[in-house]
Amino acid sequence: MKERLGVGMVGYAFMGAAHSQAWRTAPHVFDLPLQPDMAVLCGRDGTAAQAAARRLGWAEAQTDWRTLIGRDDVQLIDVCTPGDSHAEIAIAALDAGQHVLCEKPLANTVAEAEAMAAAAARASARGVRSMIGFNYRRVPAIALARQLVPRLGQLRHVRASYLQDWLVDPAFPLTWRLEREHAGSGALGDLGAHIVDLAQYLTGELITGVSGLTTTFVTERPRPDGSGPGPVTVDDAALFSARLGAGIVASFEATRFATGRKNGLRIEVNGERGSLAFDLERLNELEFDDQTQELAGFRRVLVTEPTDPYVSAWWPPGHVLGWEHTFTHEVADLVSAISAGTDPAPSFADGLQVQRVLDAVQDSAEHESRWTAVPAA
Amino acid sequence: MKERLGVGMVGYAFMGAAHSQAWRTAPHVFDLPLQPDMAVLCGRDGTAAQAAARRLGWAEAQTDWRTLIGRDDVQLIDVCTPGDSHAEIAIAALDAGQHVLCEKPLANTVAEAEAMAAAAARASARGVRSMIGFNYRRVPAIALARQLVPRLGQLRHVRASYLQDWLVDPAFPLTWRLEREHAGSGALGDLGAHIVDLAQYLTGELITGVSGLTTTFVTERPRPDGSGPGPVTVDDAALFSARLGAGIVASFEATRFATGRKNGLRIEVNGERGSLAFDLERLNELEFDDQTQELAGFRRVLVTEPTDPYVSAWWPPGHVLGWEHTFTHEVADLVSAISAGTDPAPSFADGLQVQRVLDAVQDSAEHESRWTAVPAA
Amino acid sequence: MKERLGVGMVGYAFMGAAHSQAWRTAPHVFDLPLQPDMAVLCGRDGTAAQAAARRLGWAEAQTDWRTLIGRDDVQLIDVCTPGDSHAEIAIAALDAGQHVLCEKPLANTVAEAEAMAAAAARASARGVRSMIGFNYRRVPAIALARQLVPRLGQLRHVRASYLQDWLVDPAFPLTWRLEREHAGSGALGDLGAHIVDLAQYLTGELITGVSGLTTTFVTERPRPDGSGPGPVTVDDAALFSARLGAGIVASFEATRFATGRKNGLRIEVNGERGSLAFDLERLNELEFDDQTQELAGFRRVLVTEPTDPYVSAWWPPGHVLGWEHTFTHEVADLVSAISAGTDPAPSFADGLQVQRVLDAVQDSAEHESRWTAVPAA
Amino acid sequence: MKERLGVGMVGYAFMGAAHSQAWRTAPHVFDLPLQPDMAVLCGRDGTAAQAAARRLGWAEAQTDWRTLIGRDDVQLIDVCTPGDSHAEIAIAALDAGQHVLCEKPLANTVAEAEAMAAAAARASARGVRSMIGFNYRRVPAIALARQLVPRLGQLRHVRASYLQDWLVDPAFPLTWRLEREHAGSGALGDLGAHIVDLAQYLTGELITGVSGLTTTFVTERPRPDGSGPGPVTVDDAALFSARLGAGIVASFEATRFATGRKNGLRIEVNGERGSLAFDLERLNELEFDDQTQELAGFRRVLVTEPTDPYVSAWWPPGHVLGWEHTFTHEVADLVSAISAGTDPAPSFADGLQVQRVLDAVQDSAEHESRWTAVPAA
Repeated sequence: MKERLGVGMVGYAFMGAAHSQAWRTAPHVFDLPLQPDMAVLCGRDGTAAQAAARRLGWAEAQTDWRTLIGRDDVQLIDVCTPGDSHAEIAIAALDAGQHVLCEKPLANTVAEAEAMAAAAARASARGVRSMIGFNYRRVPAIALARQLVPRLGQLRHVRASYLQDWLVDPAFPLTWRLEREHAGSGALGDLGAHIVDLAQYLTGELITGVSGLTTTFVTERPRPDGSGPGPVTVDDAALFSARLGAGIVASFEATRFATGRKNGLRIEVNGERGSLAFDLERLNELEFDDQTQELAGFRRVLVTEPTDPYVSAWWPPGHVLGWEHTFTHEVADLVSAISAGTDPAPSFADGLQVQRVLDAVQDSAEHESRWTAVPAA
Repeated sequence: MKERLGVGMVGYAFMGAAHSQAWRTAPHVFDLPLQPDMAVLCGRDGTAAQAAARRLGWAEAQTDWRTLIGRDDVQLIDVCTPGDSHAEIAIAALDAGQHVLCEKPLANTVAEAEAMAAAAARASARGVRSMIGFNYRRVPAIALARQLVPRLGQLRHVRASYLQDWLVDPAFPLTWRLEREHAGSGALGDLGAHIVDLAQYLTGELITGVSGLTTTFVTERPRPDGSGPGPVTVDDAALFSARLGAGIVASFEATRFATGRKNGLRIEVNGERGSLAFDLERLNELEFDDQTQELAGFRRVLVTEPTDPYVSAWWPPGHVLGWEHTFTHEVADLVSAISAGTDPAPSFADGLQVQRVLDAVQDSAEHESRWTAVPAA
Repeated sequence: MKERLGVGMVGYAFMGAAHSQAWRTAPHVFDLPLQPDMAVLCGRDGTAAQAAARRLGWAEAQTDWRTLIGRDDVQLIDVCTPGDSHAEIAIAALDAGQHVLCEKPLANTVAEAEAMAAAAARASARGVRSMIGFNYRRVPAIALARQLVPRLGQLRHVRASYLQDWLVDPAFPLTWRLEREHAGSGALGDLGAHIVDLAQYLTGELITGVSGLTTTFVTERPRPDGSGPGPVTVDDAALFSARLGAGIVASFEATRFATGRKNGLRIEVNGERGSLAFDLERLNELEFDDQTQELAGFRRVLVTEPTDPYVSAWWPPGHVLGWEHTFTHEVADLVSAISAGTDPAPSFADGLQVQRVLDAVQDSAEHESRWTAVPAA
Repeated sequence: MKERLGVGMVGYAFMGAAHSQAWRTAPHVFDLPLQPDMAVLCGRDGTAAQAAARRLGWAEAQTDWRTLIGRDDVQLIDVCTPGDSHAEIAIAALDAGQHVLCEKPLANTVAEAEAMAAAAARASARGVRSMIGFNYRRVPAIALARQLVPRLGQLRHVRASYLQDWLVDPAFPLTWRLEREHAGSGALGDLGAHIVDLAQYLTGELITGVSGLTTTFVTERPRPDGSGPGPVTVDDAALFSARLGAGIVASFEATRFATGRKNGLRIEVNGERGSLAFDLERLNELEFDDQTQELAGFRRVLVTEPTDPYVSAWWPPGHVLGWEHTFTHEVADLVSAISAGTDPAPSFADGLQVQRVLDAVQDSAEHESRWTAVPAA
């Protein structure tokens, strides 16, 4: 019999549902060293939390996340709340000796992120693990891309964009994601965090400086409670250029106003010898070009072979995976790391570093786009 | 509390794993009227069945499917075995008053399929339901395509192909899928069944006649037990043309030798006013062309909107689904039909009709491709 | 100074305009061994022919093609008329010692095609050259594909389709292309001829037998002269399967009712080790898959490199060519062969063989699709 | 008989060959109001110029462009030289009463461009016309896109990139295009000029400010004369963000180091109601998305219908055009404007404005990417 790993999840909206699917599925698909137990779901509205627990497969519901901290049967806290509560919950859990999986962005401010990274470092010294949920690292095509990057030779360009369009309608309401005090930023933190992480993950280099531009197209929206219009206090779109490592130049764009692009995360890396390109809307495919070969050209690699990362646990070639599988992979890797006594990646320190990049973009955007260095760790 | 629906599954290989994922997931994603209970998995090898039950989430394992027939706590039998045992298991279950979900093709022979359809008709009269697993009907893009077909006006063309390449290597062993006594046929039954069903489902018309051509490229392969080469007794590829309803002409191709095509099911329908095209390797997309509009052209519809079939139960726009989700949808629809007291689709009669089409193709192929009528029901 | 090659063109409609562009352009792009002189254009309507000559760049216009036969300043006759006059014109020219370029299909009947091939053989013995205008052989991507076919290993599959949609509207008038006495057949001869030639050209194998199905969706159309409806006497669509050489199976479809497909000639070849795919609507691209490599997948080869066939005469990489360039290449190759004293390809014999395949398809379609052998040369 | 328009072309390399093809072709495809006469080609090397004139179809060759100025039989000067000689030639011709077609970028410096625009204004007052060769405005798909932009509603985003890869190899020699004194700038002027013009042309808005970043990856290259390495004095890549009109944000990237991208000019425009996307490597296609329709999605519009801009002069639907056709369209429009007595677009003033944008990018790049306003005309 496998050892049990009790899990408590805070938050049960979009991310909570995705994480629940992962916790339910991972033990049946991967040969996990520990047996996750979906012990308790936590949400502020008791009735809703109860219903969510039943629907999503959690044994129990609570309304105060503090009741989960230090609970004997909860070895891991999965933080799926808005960014403004990440720090408090994650630090409390880590300090209480509970492993933490925290959704991105790590926090709403660099200060909070620093406190979280410090708590993670303290915890790690005591064998307590933490991980930030940059789930797209675990798309099989992205994991394969990372393996291939050395074949590209010296890297020259990254172009990354994350395009959505759900704010195009000015009548869309003023939800928490559009308020700075809850969300920290808009497209920049929500979408930009993903592409900053991917660019750094794939190239193996850190962003050293940025020049940024942000804009809010629709500055006022109806409040959800019907109390009239309120101000949008986050960016609708963020564009920035950057330098990574020694010599790579990169362009980034994150927006919620790219009409017709629903979840359009695209990233391309050009190196001396070849290139890679990826599109999240076709996440089973990786475009790879080796210009040292005759008949060069971007080939569409269907990343569904048993030799591809994560794939052997699933289906035969050509039987494609979906978006949610990234969370199942995340959970599987996290559980393996916990069992192995190693720190999983990406770490809170990685999340902090991404936060510093986003902060530099914001700072540059507020100062005439002037070049802004990203502080080293 | 919801009423329980005890499920027993026979077979636990590729299809068994896919069905298990569906049974585990459906109750957490869809609001099912009954509560499926994964009661028992059945497989001939006791140790392996036990391990599979644990891994796939079934409460118990058995080695003889007969022990499941009539069992009080098993209201539904899910048949995931090779085609040569479908008839015996399904008929026994139906006659014992147990609902049946049976993988495709319905059976290896028309005679068996007729017996199964007769059993299903008898059962239906007593409120016992049966369904054949043409899971691709439940790809959201296919379900949407069906809704759109009336907008195409009078239909003219269907072209359907199901291209795989896993037999290209002559060293690939002689598994049961390559032996007529177990599999009935090769690419024709395994892959052709899907595209025949889809062509008829989408057009709403039946195939009335066919002209067929089959071939076996590699006629001898090594036996898996190391006892030397044995004869391949099924087709490696099958091509056929057909007429559907009054005036539609169609081409079909099923093959396991289309090098580079992993799970390439493609279907295109042309009507007087527009066209539809679908590719299973990009199953979240539907190509739709309305030639009555200015600026006509195939548009790539990302079928991930909440208004699209099945999608609202899952994720926001652009967050794509995978191949396995078709089984979750299948299970959800089946459970709903059982609860509602209606016969789910596709029925065993639908499966029988597809079998008759495949039989006519085989017959034509054995008689110089001459035109062969498909007997009416 | 280069030796002059006087050209007389018969017909000045769609094909005449395309050939004129080729004759005007080839000497400026390719280093031709002879200097083509656009001497005379011939058309039955004097005024129209005169205007066409001026517009298309011909020095003179005539109304009777017989005046061109044997004319001292006309060394080559370019036949761009409907198929029912090909034989008479081409044979007269060849017998008079004039080289002939003849549009496809070679003729409307096998008997005519045989007479033409015989005339071409007689002429060749006297140093007089003939060529049939299967222009798609001279798309750079197709010419490259032919070079790559040996890398695919033993060939298994060809699937070829030529999809257009200009007859979808039942009000489209009854032009000569829809009358058997002028056009010979419909989609079969017009479009099917191209894909039969390409399939044989690319594989290097001949079609040995076929099973065919033809249909006419709209059986009556308005006469262009306003005299009311008349019967459509050719096929609107033709589907056929075939065997090539020893062991290749192939599917073909030619139609003018594939709504949304404008000039959709697609051909795919699968071999043991890889595959090729081509789409005329994206004629600068070739999809190539080498499954013996790691990271296999169809790569999009942009066939615009200086090492690609015909390309070095044109523009730098990525500066794409168009449909009309195939005729310029055709003319350049023809002039080179004439100068070199060799027979250009494709020959009238090649055209005759394609005609025999189409004839066998027609015959099969009229006899319940039964398998029909294609007579050897 | 049409009035004659004598043309003299200066320069006969890549652009000269493309312009020659246009001058040769336009009168046979379009019904031009004047008859262009390819009178004289001018190049510094007499033997080479003579050979080029013969090959490209010009009646005569000269070695000094000054001999063309004011020549009675030359009404139009076509400037195809490197950027450092544009101003001198164009101004001399305009002042002598000769119409001018000038390749882009208009000049190497804003000062030169201002002088040219002033000369063009003076000339226009006397009925002498001038045009800058932003040929991509005359891709049919781009011309169609411009017509469609009003349907997108309020514009939000432009993303434009022009990606090539011909400098990836560090052994590529130090040609004039890599020297600031001849080329003015690198990717920025050569490629960036095109996308700046297209972004402004499509949106109908001017760029008001920019933030730029340029880089030179390979700072030294072998001199073509074998005299050892020399310094690269232009940018290899330029990235910039911009604002257009009131509220549009845009990202631009021009590079010669995007491995695998041969002539990858892509531009996307997002508006409140829909989007457009274009890729020069597939220049017969326009992607259009109307999100106010049900079944929204980017549709692939094949821009080959007789109703599409320029297309009716060419071939039937689906018979695709190539890159060179843009010059034929340019020439046709220019000749029509000359005959009509109107100023053609894009004008030298348009070229100057693009130059100011590029200058601002350069300036920003040299000052820590800080936001830099583009001076108004």
